[in-house]
Amino acid sequence: MNFRVIAKYMGNILRLEGAFMAPAILVALIYKETESIMPFVITIAICEILGFALIKVKQNNKGIYAKEGYISVALGWILLSFFGSLPFVFSGYIPSIVDAFFETVSGFTTTGSSILTNVEALSNSMLYWRSFTHWLGGMGVLVFLMAVVPMSNTKGGGEGLQLMRAESPGPTVGKMTPTLKDTARVLYSIYLVMTIILIVLLVMSGMPVFDSLLTAFGTAGTGGFGIKVDSMDGYNHLTQLIVAVGMMLFGVNFSIYYLILNKKFKEAFTNEELLGYLGIITVSTLLIFFNVKHSYDNSGIALLDSYFSVSSVITTTGFATANFDLWPELSRFILVAIMISGASAGSTGGGVKVSRLIILLKTIKREIQAVIRPRAVKTVMMDGKPVSEVVIRNTLAYFAVYWFIAVGSMFMLALIDGFDSETTITAVMACLNNIGPGLSMVGPAGNFGMFSPLSKIILSLDMLIGRLEIWPMLLLFSPSVYKNTTRK
Amino acid sequence: MNFRVIAKYMGNILRLEGAFMAPAILVALIYKETESIMPFVITIAICEILGFALIKVKQNNKGIYAKEGYISVALGWILLSFFGSLPFVFSGYIPSIVDAFFETVSGFTTTGSSILTNVEALSNSMLYWRSFTHWLGGMGVLVFLMAVVPMSNTKGGGEGLQLMRAESPGPTVGKMTPTLKDTARVLYSIYLVMTIILIVLLVMSGMPVFDSLLTAFGTAGTGGFGIKVDSMDGYNHLTQLIVAVGMMLFGVNFSIYYLILNKKFKEAFTNEELLGYLGIITVSTLLIFFNVKHSYDNSGIALLDSYFSVSSVITTTGFATANFDLWPELSRFILVAIMISGASAGSTGGGVKVSRLIILLKTIKREIQAVIRPRAVKTVMMDGKPVSEVVIRNTLAYFAVYWFIAVGSMFMLALIDGFDSETTITAVMACLNNIGPGLSMVGPAGNFGMFSPLSKIILSLDMLIGRLEIWPMLLLFSPSVYKNTTRK
Repeated sequence: MNFRVIAKYMGNILRLEGAFMAPAILVALIYKETESIMPFVITIAICEILGFALIKVKQNNKGIYAKEGYISVALGWILLSFFGSLPFVFSGYIPSIVDAFFETVSGFTTTGSSILTNVEALSNSMLYWRSFTHWLGGMGVLVFLMAVVPMSNTKGGGEGLQLMRAESPGPTVGKMTPTLKDTARVLYSIYLVMTIILIVLLVMSGMPVFDSLLTAFGTAGTGGFGIKVDSMDGYNHLTQLIVAVGMMLFGVNFSIYYLILNKKFKEAFTNEELLGYLGIITVSTLLIFFNVKHSYDNSGIALLDSYFSVSSVITTTGFATANFDLWPELSRFILVAIMISGASAGSTGGGVKVSRLIILLKTIKREIQAVIRPRAVKTVMMDGKPVSEVVIRNTLAYFAVYWFIAVGSMFMLALIDGFDSETTITAVMACLNNIGPGLSMVGPAGNFGMFSPLSKIILSLDMLIGRLEIWPMLLLFSPSVYKNTTRK
Repeated sequence: MNFRVIAKYMGNILRLEGAFMAPAILVALIYKETESIMPFVITIAICEILGFALIKVKQNNKGIYAKEGYISVALGWILLSFFGSLPFVFSGYIPSIVDAFFETVSGFTTTGSSILTNVEALSNSMLYWRSFTHWLGGMGVLVFLMAVVPMSNTKGGGEGLQLMRAESPGPTVGKMTPTLKDTARVLYSIYLVMTIILIVLLVMSGMPVFDSLLTAFGTAGTGGFGIKVDSMDGYNHLTQLIVAVGMMLFGVNFSIYYLILNKKFKEAFTNEELLGYLGIITVSTLLIFFNVKHSYDNSGIALLDSYFSVSSVITTTGFATANFDLWPELSRFILVAIMISGASAGSTGGGVKVSRLIILLKTIKREIQAVIRPRAVKTVMMDGKPVSEVVIRNTLAYFAVYWFIAVGSMFMLALIDGFDSETTITAVMACLNNIGPGLSMVGPAGNFGMFSPLSKIILSLDMLIGRLEIWPMLLLFSPSVYKNTTRK
């Protein structure tokens, strides 16, 4: 294990975090929140000093391999969350470090689950930082580093690819451009431009500027931290519609936008995952609409609420215009189903990803056929290309481990806190899939504050496991990874 | 699809069921239970007449392939359970057909979950039939048919192998002898002899003869239907110890006994699954013993209760000498963990099987290594032999589907009945793994009677899916299996 290069990455991450925290001081100055300034100043100082020290760690000429990439990503996200939680603790807004860590993990992993009963009690600068973690976590912090920081020791060849593979969601990682640095830049450029357009549209729809900024962070990162107790319910319908469409668009694989920019329309619009994703949204919205419309005076609003909830849940954002925990059982069931499916690979959304589900379903279908005719095993096809057996094996292993973690976490929560089954099951699924709200006590009108500290730590780990898609966190805790440091 | 050969199998299964029901009439006569005679007579008549008609279905000269094998097994078990439940309904002991079906599925799948509040209210002949379903289901009804009924159309070559593969538990099916008929006979001979020895030992330990017979059925099949409200708690400690050792031995892969009979001791005692299975039992027993012994006056009884519970839960039998739902959380957690692991492949026990877990863990380890070094993918080894990639793929697919079914069932139960999370989660795990009791409301002191009919049907399907290890039941409901009837 090349610990020196990992130290360097950690240093870069901390310095980056400090830099992104700086605007919070500006917000505090604008809104005259004197009590919030020092917590940010102290945290930024810690990040910059520690980060600078780590960057200065003497490097050897060893390259970086997959192992270091995965460990850097797992450790980086934990550090990011820990140091990101300090302003909440120092300011006293969230006195418990466990609570603050949960809230910050929830931010960076774009989960959006909160332990706060009254989010409106937070100062604007705290709200800014809380929502900004969504934006940074959405596209990935190491992908950002890759786009802006010159990487020195590329001897291992796939330095960037390993980092990108570990941090980017989805079963496969496609290089869009010849170099990864360019790919990272293209991704962040699309992301930034789309976010700016969203902010402008939100302001035009009548939303206050500060609200527009923070709502755009939550929408772009598909995070879902609201800044009002009633989430999005208090804004006008046009604003709600813009957010709903926004969430849906940020849940699309960004390589689709790159294809569109390059005028490869046919390739973009015949993408199986895109069609599956849009199909699920359409069918779910209509089913829920017909299921709930009798309780609305106005069908248009019923349709908007249905579409908003589906878009929010499938992209694992978690904003709410209606308390869907009070909806009929069919609607609740559909929402939980699309919670698990999640958004597209290569988007900012969470969940197991539509493409992984498509691969799983095609593989199960193939296994059923293999049971019938063992000698005629077919190749699994996707977008007209064969899916490699390595990807299939990795996808199956992903699901095997995924469910172990899900049920294991549920059982631990049941033992530790013993809340009702809907709370326990949906709390774990909401965290593991980076959604935000679940049902019952953790429904849109509830929060995660009542869990015990141990449960909150388990749920925090679930969020990180979900965002980083299992392997980095699993490798971080695998002793075998640290053995055998000699290289062949 | 060769429906004619499936009809013939169904006929044989029904006739066999009628024959095995006959001793119940004898029991009814001995105990002068006049009200129980007619229900059995009528059911036997239905089975024999319908069975005879189905056997007479004109056969074509098409062979039987994997497809027909799997469908026969799935359909056969459903028919077996449906007709097996009729005596309970006709006699009025269990008036609801859903309840009676649940109870009979629970019997044949050797689950042992009961909807009865007071099992002692049943007549002895009903108790006999209820417990005997465990014995027949334990080793498999189609394996029994294979041993005794001459099979005509073996043109497909692997007729028996397909049936056996579909019905026998575990990731691989080993032929022990050159012909499958002999393998089936060897299996049932070992099973019968071990059951007889168990009955003799139980009688010698002071258990009444009728109780010994029924307890032996439940132990051999690792089913766990008790005939007393307090399960095994009322019997003496020697009896309890014999049952505990018995359960453990019936949870061993029967091919180990065949190896021992053939004096291949080294091969038998270095078997990785056997060592894993015994290791889990030893460690779990000791952990639970040290966790609970403070609440006992006598350490010996604490050790016996610990061992009995571990043996009962890991083999998925479900007998109880102590209400482990009242034990400390560590002990309860260990019990749930070994509920899922289950017993050995090729035994009468349920669960996911120790060998499948070993393959899964080795595969996950390999995937972690593959993440680090993608170009050096190793072969997974077991018992010194490489595990084929087909078995690995099937094992991973098994787990992927297994967890989907588990979490899906939990969520449906939560929506339908909304009991506490421990009840919901452990009820599903207890049924899917064919264990019997769970925790909380379905703990050793509770029962499944309070679930709604719809939940009972879901749990019945879970029991069948668990016993037949997913694929047969999945194929039964796959439209693609029925298409494409032309053969190449």
